[in-house]
Amino acid sequence: MDEKIVKEMVEDIKLRQERSEKSVPIGISNRHAHFTKEAFKTLFGADAEATLHKNVKQPGQYACKELFTIEGPKGSIKDVRMIGPYRSYNQVEISAADARKLGVEQPPIRDSGKLANTPGIKLVGPKGTVTLPSGLIMSKRHIHFQTKEAETFKVKDGQEVRVLCGRGTERETIYERVLCRVSDQFALELHLDVDEANAAGMKNNDAAFIV
Amino acid sequence: MDEKIVKEMVEDIKLRQERSEKSVPIGISNRHAHFTKEAFKTLFGADAEATLHKNVKQPGQYACKELFTIEGPKGSIKDVRMIGPYRSYNQVEISAADARKLGVEQPPIRDSGKLANTPGIKLVGPKGTVTLPSGLIMSKRHIHFQTKEAETFKVKDGQEVRVLCGRGTERETIYERVLCRVSDQFALELHLDVDEANAAGMKNNDAAFIV
Repeated sequence: MDEKIVKEMVEDIKLRQERSEKSVPIGISNRHAHFTKEAFKTLFGADAEATLHKNVKQPGQYACKELFTIEGPKGSIKDVRMIGPYRSYNQVEISAADARKLGVEQPPIRDSGKLANTPGIKLVGPKGTVTLPSGLIMSKRHIHFQTKEAETFKVKDGQEVRVLCGRGTERETIYERVLCRVSDQFALELHLDVDEANAAGMKNNDAAFIV
Repeated sequence: MDEKIVKEMVEDIKLRQERSEKSVPIGISNRHAHFTKEAFKTLFGADAEATLHKNVKQPGQYACKELFTIEGPKGSIKDVRMIGPYRSYNQVEISAADARKLGVEQPPIRDSGKLANTPGIKLVGPKGTVTLPSGLIMSKRHIHFQTKEAETFKVKDGQEVRVLCGRGTERETIYERVLCRVSDQFALELHLDVDEANAAGMKNNDAAFIV
């Protein structure tokens, strides 16, 4: 075999080994939305402001107290929360199981904010209704890395990696094509939706490994 | 490197390559039960007999018309079906999402019929109620092989294999520890539960590969 190829293979194996020695905690994303201030006020009233229900792991991000309903042609899902603060776009993230319950086709799998050619959905709050023309997605599996952590793991923003979940269990699973997202504002966390977490038998804060 | 080890590695790679050239169709298992005749008659009446709703892919197996409810401490799931014919044991197969809805701990992951130390569950039919002392499980991922097909794939009953789902898609997933079950009565089919199928973006009859 070509010596150069062998050397590259050995380097790749070493890199994977090195990465897999550090674990990545899992955060399970239930269905949720990101709203503009305008959409929020349409749902909850002109005087309403998004209020803290619970901080999530990503710095500055929080689940809000205010609850709304996602309405589909065949069913609805109540008690959904916005993850604040307000954003410059409206986005509703659901699971494949949710799509079935709503009676809509499974929406495309997208990175947050990449909403071109996504379907819309109707949302109902206590003070009003918003019919989004687009913004319904299933979230692409991703890992948040703080910039320094990304250096430690030797990954770059936008790169896709292979992630091992449930190591040594009956539901051991390897998720391919997990997106790496890098920012000074992030904390290390693998985001899976409820279907993905269940399939691999994972709970919040369980350990995953980049392999 | 030891020549014997290299030879074994090459053989293993060749075997995996060979297996992965043939696809395995996926069958998605929604929640369902297997009942004894006695349990069935308690739920549906002494004169009732299990009647055909729809044949499933496994020869001689069929979803029944008769519907019952699974009752948990926090919620219930309606319109569940028995997969007939009657069996010598009672078994209720749910997903992790179902466990949450019912308000029960996730039951153990088991091969069909291996029910020692499993929790019970209450079932309600139109004519009566059955409280099973045990039998609630999440199904272990498995592939049914007809005996001749198992020979073609070079797998043995009870062996665990690695299965690739959603090849080339955003949700490409490798499920480890998939159980091989071999019988003259079986037809080739990978059984995943709804969570597992969703996580890998799979629909019925999509192709999986033993890798």
